[in-house]
Amino acid sequence: MKKGQLFIVSGPSGAGKGSICQKLVKELDVELSVSMTTRAPRPGEIEGVDYYFVTRDEFEESIEKGDLLEFAEVYGNYYGTPKQKVLDKLANGKDVVLEIDIQGALEVRNEYPQGIYIFILPPSMTELRKRITRRGSDSPDSIELRLGETLTEVSYIDQYNYCVVNGDLEEAVIRVKAIILAEHSRVSEQIYGLIKNYKEEV
Amino acid sequence: MKKGQLFIVSGPSGAGKGSICQKLVKELDVELSVSMTTRAPRPGEIEGVDYYFVTRDEFEESIEKGDLLEFAEVYGNYYGTPKQKVLDKLANGKDVVLEIDIQGALEVRNEYPQGIYIFILPPSMTELRKRITRRGSDSPDSIELRLGETLTEVSYIDQYNYCVVNGDLEEAVIRVKAIILAEHSRVSEQIYGLIKNYKEEV
Repeated sequence: MKKGQLFIVSGPSGAGKGSICQKLVKELDVELSVSMTTRAPRPGEIEGVDYYFVTRDEFEESIEKGDLLEFAEVYGNYYGTPKQKVLDKLANGKDVVLEIDIQGALEVRNEYPQGIYIFILPPSMTELRKRITRRGSDSPDSIELRLGETLTEVSYIDQYNYCVVNGDLEEAVIRVKAIILAEHSRVSEQIYGLIKNYKEEV
Repeated sequence: MKKGQLFIVSGPSGAGKGSICQKLVKELDVELSVSMTTRAPRPGEIEGVDYYFVTRDEFEESIEKGDLLEFAEVYGNYYGTPKQKVLDKLANGKDVVLEIDIQGALEVRNEYPQGIYIFILPPSMTELRKRITRRGSDSPDSIELRLGETLTEVSYIDQYNYCVVNGDLEEAVIRVKAIILAEHSRVSEQIYGLIKNYKEEV
């Protein structure tokens, strides 16, 4: 059976990785990786679809056992990617898309270097400043801090396989879809099955 | 200026690499590499479009000077790929598609390992036998010989980056087009220009 591939869609805050991943799930036969969190469920959130909701003890046990591809603590809550859930999907032949920040992607890469790492870039810092400002959740000072962080983050781009500039969302999605389709055509162990068939035919 | 990329479309005789390349040139902004030959022009063939027509002396001088990416002698005529013509197109930002047999592709790879090597496979040996028989240019014995050669040729597939099974031509073209588009999104030196711009903006 053909094994699935793990596509890591990563990039700075405001680059638009979330919008891209939503489109990928709608338009392709891929599954989003579901995070584990200690945060309380919000109304309407579904266990196993939006998150796996666990207690702090359970999360820390997962950390200790090495069961997470990556994790982080944000505002007192843990968030992480359960390794086995991803591996099970891949083993079942499903492609998995993991949307994650750069720090997380670099951690995942240590655990799963055979993944396909895609860096989503904003078209310019001016555009990124606009997008973050439009959200309205950051103060002017915190926006400048974020932009400074972004400059540091993009220096990790050489740890990635691909980069896609997200100026126009449709165009960016076309590019990421092409990457996923192209990776299905990689020369890999899976082709040796076909070649073996050739030999039996002749 | 963005440099072009060299896509080598290669595979056994009967796999359909020619039909795929014709479609690529129609549907994408790519140029076919033009071969040099000592064969006499046929009616309607245009110098520099179908072939570069040269004398035997000129061809042998090109061989000696190392001016060819690859060459072969077939039924007493030389055929080869002029290196500088390809490099000039790439330097001008054009993507170049080179349709070539497996032996030739392996030679090109020695000279230009940074090319993207795509192996076109027939869906089965039964189908390949049908296609070669349909052409009517080979005797039954020679067809069996060809199929045997194909088995040897496919063992070089691990020298390639991608492989595309050509069962349905449209489907195969979609896959090769995705490979070309995806390769435009590779993390390469070209992205560092954008990142440099970011730094100047902040």
